[in-house]
Amino acid sequence: RTGSPKWLEKTMKLDGNDLWEAKLSFKNIGLYEFTIKAWIDVFKTWQNHLIKKREAGQSIDIMMKVGVKLIHDSIVHASDEQKKDLELWYNKLNGAKAEKVLDLAISEELCQLINSCIDHNKVTVYEKNMPLSIERKQALFCAWYELFPRSWSPEAGKHGTFKDCERLLPEIARMGFDIIYFPPIHPIGVDKRKGKNNAIICEASDPGSPWAVGNKQGGHKDIHPELGTLQDFKHFVKQAGEYGMEIALDIAFQCSPNHPYIKQHPDWFLWRPDGTIQYAENPPKKYEDIVPINFETKDWKGLYKELKSVFLYWIKQGVKVFRVDNPHTKPFHFWEVTFGDIKKKYPDVLFLAEAFTRPKIMYRLAKLGFTQSYTYFTWRNTPEEFVEYMEELTTEPVKSFFQPNFWPNTPDILPESLEHKGRSAFITRFILASTLSTSYGIYGPAFELLENEPFPGREEYLDNEKYEIKNWDWDKPDNIKDIISTVNRLRRENPALQDRNNISFIPSTNAEFLVSVKATDDLSNIIVTVVNFDPDHTQSGFITLDLESLGINDGEPYIMFDLLHDKKYTWTGAKNYVELGPEGAIAHIFRLHKKY
Amino acid sequence: RTGSPKWLEKTMKLDGNDLWEAKLSFKNIGLYEFTIKAWIDVFKTWQNHLIKKREAGQSIDIMMKVGVKLIHDSIVHASDEQKKDLELWYNKLNGAKAEKVLDLAISEELCQLINSCIDHNKVTVYEKNMPLSIERKQALFCAWYELFPRSWSPEAGKHGTFKDCERLLPEIARMGFDIIYFPPIHPIGVDKRKGKNNAIICEASDPGSPWAVGNKQGGHKDIHPELGTLQDFKHFVKQAGEYGMEIALDIAFQCSPNHPYIKQHPDWFLWRPDGTIQYAENPPKKYEDIVPINFETKDWKGLYKELKSVFLYWIKQGVKVFRVDNPHTKPFHFWEVTFGDIKKKYPDVLFLAEAFTRPKIMYRLAKLGFTQSYTYFTWRNTPEEFVEYMEELTTEPVKSFFQPNFWPNTPDILPESLEHKGRSAFITRFILASTLSTSYGIYGPAFELLENEPFPGREEYLDNEKYEIKNWDWDKPDNIKDIISTVNRLRRENPALQDRNNISFIPSTNAEFLVSVKATDDLSNIIVTVVNFDPDHTQSGFITLDLESLGINDGEPYIMFDLLHDKKYTWTGAKNYVELGPEGAIAHIFRLHKKY
Repeated sequence: RTGSPKWLEKTMKLDGNDLWEAKLSFKNIGLYEFTIKAWIDVFKTWQNHLIKKREAGQSIDIMMKVGVKLIHDSIVHASDEQKKDLELWYNKLNGAKAEKVLDLAISEELCQLINSCIDHNKVTVYEKNMPLSIERKQALFCAWYELFPRSWSPEAGKHGTFKDCERLLPEIARMGFDIIYFPPIHPIGVDKRKGKNNAIICEASDPGSPWAVGNKQGGHKDIHPELGTLQDFKHFVKQAGEYGMEIALDIAFQCSPNHPYIKQHPDWFLWRPDGTIQYAENPPKKYEDIVPINFETKDWKGLYKELKSVFLYWIKQGVKVFRVDNPHTKPFHFWEVTFGDIKKKYPDVLFLAEAFTRPKIMYRLAKLGFTQSYTYFTWRNTPEEFVEYMEELTTEPVKSFFQPNFWPNTPDILPESLEHKGRSAFITRFILASTLSTSYGIYGPAFELLENEPFPGREEYLDNEKYEIKNWDWDKPDNIKDIISTVNRLRRENPALQDRNNISFIPSTNAEFLVSVKATDDLSNIIVTVVNFDPDHTQSGFITLDLESLGINDGEPYIMFDLLHDKKYTWTGAKNYVELGPEGAIAHIFRLHKKY
Repeated sequence: RTGSPKWLEKTMKLDGNDLWEAKLSFKNIGLYEFTIKAWIDVFKTWQNHLIKKREAGQSIDIMMKVGVKLIHDSIVHASDEQKKDLELWYNKLNGAKAEKVLDLAISEELCQLINSCIDHNKVTVYEKNMPLSIERKQALFCAWYELFPRSWSPEAGKHGTFKDCERLLPEIARMGFDIIYFPPIHPIGVDKRKGKNNAIICEASDPGSPWAVGNKQGGHKDIHPELGTLQDFKHFVKQAGEYGMEIALDIAFQCSPNHPYIKQHPDWFLWRPDGTIQYAENPPKKYEDIVPINFETKDWKGLYKELKSVFLYWIKQGVKVFRVDNPHTKPFHFWEVTFGDIKKKYPDVLFLAEAFTRPKIMYRLAKLGFTQSYTYFTWRNTPEEFVEYMEELTTEPVKSFFQPNFWPNTPDILPESLEHKGRSAFITRFILASTLSTSYGIYGPAFELLENEPFPGREEYLDNEKYEIKNWDWDKPDNIKDIISTVNRLRRENPALQDRNNISFIPSTNAEFLVSVKATDDLSNIIVTVVNFDPDHTQSGFITLDLESLGINDGEPYIMFDLLHDKKYTWTGAKNYVELGPEGAIAHIFRLHKKY
């Protein structure tokens, strides 16, 4: 454990081609370090040679003397207790007839004793201590539901509150989500506030984007008064807890032009030669309602401390999950230092990186301490693209440090795969996200209500909730809440869906099918998911299971439970027929059962 | 250059996906180091933003002031000369109308000036200096010919000499080889000497294995008297040089029981409890004629020094190429230290690792300083196996440190691919070795005379030359010396065959065909090699060239010169017919020529 002087040792086993393997399990979450020690196991080599000579009928008398000397020589580096044991062994073997003491000489116990008092000068230790983060289960397996609390007043047009949102809890819980994620809940900037559809000029009634953080009512540690009080927030967190759900807050380290930091710490920002503050821009695009923080400030230590205190403040209010906005536009060093400090004290805190950026940056952020990350899932559209992307995510080196979280939509993104698309397309994207990845999220209720109207020419929602208060009809016909509920139940009931790198893909004769197989190590739970990527037509074809890897003899019938539609098929042989389409089932989630 | 305080700088260019690239060329061979420096190019970013704003018709007045300030701020870290330049620029831009000085502001010259006086505190330097070895051309491109000099007396049964071998030089040169490699030329042990076919008891007339190094006449710095004197050896080296060929010596760091080291340095060897020396064994196998050196001796520094002096001794006699026997059974540390020292003084010395061992060990030896290595070529037998193996060798990371040397046979190995096989099989293996790899070697004349009789049950030659003196009939009918000569000439005439990682494989409709394409960067030399892996039957099929990558328009005819058989074909389109068989050509080496 990082910081502890006590190291635990575990013997590694050779796994072929000079790769050595050790399996470790941990009782407590937290930060650990590991390194590798290696030495030549002279005694084991001697034992192996002894056995081989014996088997070949060669004399072992001289070799036995060599071994006795090895025992004798290791006494020098032994502790008092080890010394006593070694002397016992020495006395048993020394001078004895080789044939008679052979079994003693080749015993594993003796070999371990000798290796436990190896000369430290002969041991090579890997030069680095490698970090290892042991996290709670939700780091691997969770379903997120994002909502704007201000849109949930029972009265249309009125600003919703945390109190209003408490009535949503039973339904979100019924849908089976683990984490409810709020966009920033802080006071919203007034100057340069954006209007509906990101308009430069806003109306007096426009609520502004929650990502324009801060005004005279407060900043990152304050709550937008119209949402309620800190007490209301804490009550909501507690109520959600009663349903087994956690709250995730959105931490966006940027300011509106009215954020208190600007007056308190003008040196944390960039000022232009005309005396005005430098707003965010990516020329020729301008984001006048946002002021970026200048992490290159001379007072970076003060800045780091304050920003860390934002996390600590909300942790104190009971929040253990954070979605971090645009982490790739802040220095790597900042995250490394900040998360290192926080995780030492709160190893159960999870951070989701909203890093839609280049792959190497996303992977670096994961190594610096982000528990999970947004991904390119949103822009993968064909079975081949998914096979390739999943291969990258679930093999070394990526699988060791990067935990994907798949989002079919976000308030920022209405992807092409959903634009103007119908129910089947939404179900397809949902099943892909929730079965390919152990962690996923949706921005609701836009998703389950099949919102599909883009802002013309952009991969964004028309009348985006970021800039206005909505009044959702959550029970709109055709909504897919029941399917979401079913799939989340299947995720909880089937351990194969709770493991990340146990996925493989099998061939199908229809190029519109993606067929994934997830199985537990002991094959007690096997899930086969078939998704039809053509939302408009019925597609059929044969899929070919690798029966041997699933422990099924060829010719032996087995049962495929269609868990989504509660049907049961008996299959025989590797190759079987599947038909999927918008009229019937657009996807199957099968549990494979051996018949006997 | 390693050891020099002077560093050269080269600007890297972004090559997509966060990979940066720089091309360096070196005038002198030797050991170098490189590292990477990185900083945020604030000024270039400013220039880019300025251009984009300008293009979007936005005001650039304030931005120009920001830039002027950047120029001003960089004066602090500038040298006197840079300061003068910066002040000139500052005066030109400061206060000027932004539109008028735009071209000056965005000039590359100004950007470079500012980056050349960047604040060193803002520069990140990669923590390691990475080693880089610049070698002479033969490190990449050479053809080896191994022979036992003792087998070349004109008188049958008599021990051959270096003098005798001088008469071979014209023919070896005609065949086109660059390096003549001798097995160990030192005095050979007497005790436990092996007889014919590795017999435990030898006859008085048996010459012994040259790898049992040393007797009372001397050790690793001495010459077996029956081969001649040091003067004879040096004369041979000189004569070979006249033909443009070099001599490679075999350095086998092991001793016969009669090696002078054993009496001089008993502490360099392991002694058994009965007072006898520990001979080499890999239980239950015993190699009583060989005594291994104990590198774990307390006098390892003395041992390292002496063994290094063996290389230095032969370097002084004019030898610059060494084939190192079983380097994987000696410590990595020894090679690292020894080669590091030698290369500092003699950067033109080449080392070939005879490491037939696990891949990671072979790669590690390459990183420690071995110029080239033996490979698994010898055991790759199908087109798929070759495609896979070549892919591994010619892509990162392997291509950056490992230089393969392909051997179809060695005195130790008569592989299955040649056992009892005929002329076609030998030609196939030769063309594969010499066209897939820039460096290759054969053990002759066993190879070109099609020796194919194995010791029963082993992948070894019957009546192995290691244990007896041969009397070769070099002009035996059916020998393939002419083909060898032709292929080596083609290798020298075609630059595409002299580059290592320019290889690609193209599809064929016949699974017995392996079709490789090698081309120079400028496409001025394109070689297409088609090999039929079925030595017994005529095979035909279509091969499909990637015309676009070769700069040929579809529909445009092009010429394929069959360089092996001096024929000429006009092809059109990507897909063309090829027929190969034991009766006609077993392989094609085409040079592709554009017609216009």
